[in-house]
Amino acid sequence: GSEENSDHRWGGVCGFPPDGQADDGHEVTVVDNFFTGRKRNVEHWIGHENFELINHDVVEPLYIEVDQIYHLASPASPPNYMYNPIKTLKTNTIGTLNMLGLAKRVGARLLLASTSEVYGDPEVHPQNEEYWGHVNPIGPRACYDEGKRVAETMCYAYMKQEGVEVRVARIFNTFGSRMHMNDGRVVSNFILQALQGEPLTGNPEEHTILEFARLIKSLAQDDPQRRRPDIRKANMMLGWEPVEGLNKTIQYFSRELEHQA
Amino acid sequence: GSEENSDHRWGGVCGFPPDGQADDGHEVTVVDNFFTGRKRNVEHWIGHENFELINHDVVEPLYIEVDQIYHLASPASPPNYMYNPIKTLKTNTIGTLNMLGLAKRVGARLLLASTSEVYGDPEVHPQNEEYWGHVNPIGPRACYDEGKRVAETMCYAYMKQEGVEVRVARIFNTFGSRMHMNDGRVVSNFILQALQGEPLTGNPEEHTILEFARLIKSLAQDDPQRRRPDIRKANMMLGWEPVEGLNKTIQYFSRELEHQA
Ligand SMILES: NC(=O)c1ccc[n+]([C@@H]2O[C@H](COP(=O)([O-])OP(=O)(O)OC[C@H]3O[C@@H](n4cnc5c(N)ncnc54)[C@H](O)[C@@H]3O)[C@@H](O)[C@H]2O)c1
Ligand SMILES: NC(=O)c1ccc[n+]([C@@H]2O[C@H](COP(=O)([O-])OP(=O)(O)OC[C@H]3O[C@@H](n4cnc5c(N)ncnc54)[C@H](O)[C@@H]3O)[C@@H](O)[C@H]2O)c1
Ligand SMILES: O=c1ccn([C@@H]2O[C@H](COP(=O)(O)OP(=O)(O)O)[C@@H](O)[C@H]2O)c(=O)[nH]1
Ligand SMILES: O=c1ccn([C@@H]2O[C@H](COP(=O)(O)OP(=O)(O)O)[C@@H](O)[C@H]2O)c(=O)[nH]1
Ligand SMILES: O=c1ccn([C@@H]2O[C@H](COP(=O)(O)OP(=O)(O)O)[C@@H](O)[C@H]2O)c(=O)[nH]1
Ligand SMILES: O=c1ccn([C@@H]2O[C@H](COP(=O)(O)OP(=O)(O)O)[C@@H](O)[C@H]2O)c(=O)[nH]1
Repeated sequence: GSEENSDHRWGGVCGFPPDGQADDGHEVTVVDNFFTGRKRNVEHWIGHENFELINHDVVEPLYIEVDQIYHLASPASPPNYMYNPIKTLKTNTIGTLNMLGLAKRVGARLLLASTSEVYGDPEVHPQNEEYWGHVNPIGPRACYDEGKRVAETMCYAYMKQEGVEVRVARIFNTFGSRMHMNDGRVVSNFILQALQGEPLTGNPEEHTILEFARLIKSLAQDDPQRRRPDIRKANMMLGWEPVEGLNKTIQYFSRELEHQA
Repeated sequence: GSEENSDHRWGGVCGFPPDGQADDGHEVTVVDNFFTGRKRNVEHWIGHENFELINHDVVEPLYIEVDQIYHLASPASPPNYMYNPIKTLKTNTIGTLNMLGLAKRVGARLLLASTSEVYGDPEVHPQNEEYWGHVNPIGPRACYDEGKRVAETMCYAYMKQEGVEVRVARIFNTFGSRMHMNDGRVVSNFILQALQGEPLTGNPEEHTILEFARLIKSLAQDDPQRRRPDIRKANMMLGWEPVEGLNKTIQYFSRELEHQA
């Protein structure tokens, strides 16, 4: 909805910043503590008159003036969110409360980047918005899964009780330019290995997919067996269809690898 | 385990304070903001040399010196926790983080009073500790259910990451002396109505059980259909058996009603 009004101020708490928005005349503020984010991802915006970068941890209160908040701040891949589970929990609970308190004070709309992991190890395929999920509250992934679940609860509580406009997106595995090449998830691993002429193991260590599948089963307690979104609603209401983004990602990775060589 | 050491200091954040402990030579500190708790429940301890009462909200940090923490602070009955869902969420998230931070700093053991509501509307009967639950993360009860689920996650995260000794008890519907007569749940409603010679409706409004059951079904979106604990483990490991506590509760209620008359 921001396209209608060219002097909107965006408060993006971002991993993948909303590229292009600062050029459209929006004032964009990116808030990040650079736990997993890299300044390089936004360096082409630094110095732009409509762009501001705040080095800040969302676990601490934040007082800025904005119209829209994109609350994306959270470690996102399993190795990152399991690195410091307590910090993951604080970011998704206190951090979300702070962003909702900010939204309430300034009357901003807030988008929460939630995750398919709220479905846990789903017993229904594919998953749609009505499915309640199947999550182990005290398992190794719970810091992220339960953190995001309660972040959703918080959003709807501020909506019902305080009239804050909220949107919640349950994002499944995403890929594209500027994604982490080493986030340890399957898409980046496969592309990287293919580009480097290594066997596709889905894992930095050397296993065949079959071995790896066996390894996952034995090691990764509670690792979801499979997850697949029900995308019919997005298609019906937004006309959205999955597009071939893999090629873009592969091109980005190969540029990055050249750059490193 | 406190019985072995007579100069233990207890930090009880309490609804039903651990009666008798102050008499056993333990120093007992009760922390409560009196949201649903009543000073009357502890007034017989006020003035006792081993007893201290702190009027404090666990959403704010708390710096005291204790050996054991009973983290019971939370609105507990549906009308109470739905009265202010945001406060329920803050108490169970920020409040739990504060109690765990306290436990970590002073090296105290922490017991979390969790709930059978972490099982939501269970699809397995009876429920044991291995069941992951069936909770709607954005339903009307989510402020409590998801708040308690993530509170459990936090406890185990502080245990694994910081070595805090934690215990989590998933309490099913409890009754006894000094319980709220008007908490709106089925046990207190039935006793109260029976004592007052009213029809047993399970509800302050006048409905038969059948009507009420229909009403629940139509009104209470997501109201769990039934919940029943699997108590074999408690019996096997602790020799615990449910005892006839209903009579005590009925006696307490009838004394209270006489007192009010
Ligand atoms: N990429 C996916 O496949 C995927 C899937 C589901 C959900 N998500 C969610 O989308 C959001 C963005 O993920 P991403 O893939 O772009 O990951 P990312 O790591 O690139 O972005 C997350 C950003 O949050 C920052 N951050 C972390 N903790 C913070 C804190 N306490 N204070 C301030 N900033 C903090 C990080 O530094 C990073 O820049 C996350 O909330 C993630 O959970 C991503
Ligand atoms: N009674 C049950 O059937 C039952 C079942 C499952 C779980 N529990 C849990 O057991 C605990 C005790 O419940 P109870 O039935 O004795 O209820 P209760 O209402 O008597 O006790 C809860 C106490 O917490 C206090 N409190 C609430 N928010 C607080 C805050 N922010 N800071 C400080 N104090 C706060 C209240 O004033 C009250 O004294 C709760 O955590 C509840 O969720 C109770
Ligand atoms: O502009 C703001 C307003 C609030 N908050 C934080 O958001 C939290 C939740 O806000 P809310 O209004 O619910 O809290 P309250 O002030 O009522 O405790 C508060 O604790 C603040 O720390 C913030 O970071 N920026
Ligand atoms: O080599 C692999 C690696 C992962 N997966 C599966 O792919 C999905 C996505 O896993 P990923 O490691 O990308 O991260 P997640 O989304 O589970 O956090 C999971 O269901 C994995 O079991 C797979 O089939 N082969
Ligand atoms: O004696 C204490 C120690 C900590 N805390 C609170 O507990 C929270 C979590 O503690 P932790 O040590 O994890 O937090 P940190 O200080 O590392 O941010 C902190 O934010 C404090 O507000 C408290 O209330 N009492
Ligand atoms: O008149 C009644 C009221 C409640 N219940 C059931 O008893 C259980 C406990 O309900 P209560 O209202 O005590 O509170 P809850 O534990 O659900 O928060 C629930 O499964 C209700 O559906 C019932 O069978 N008859």
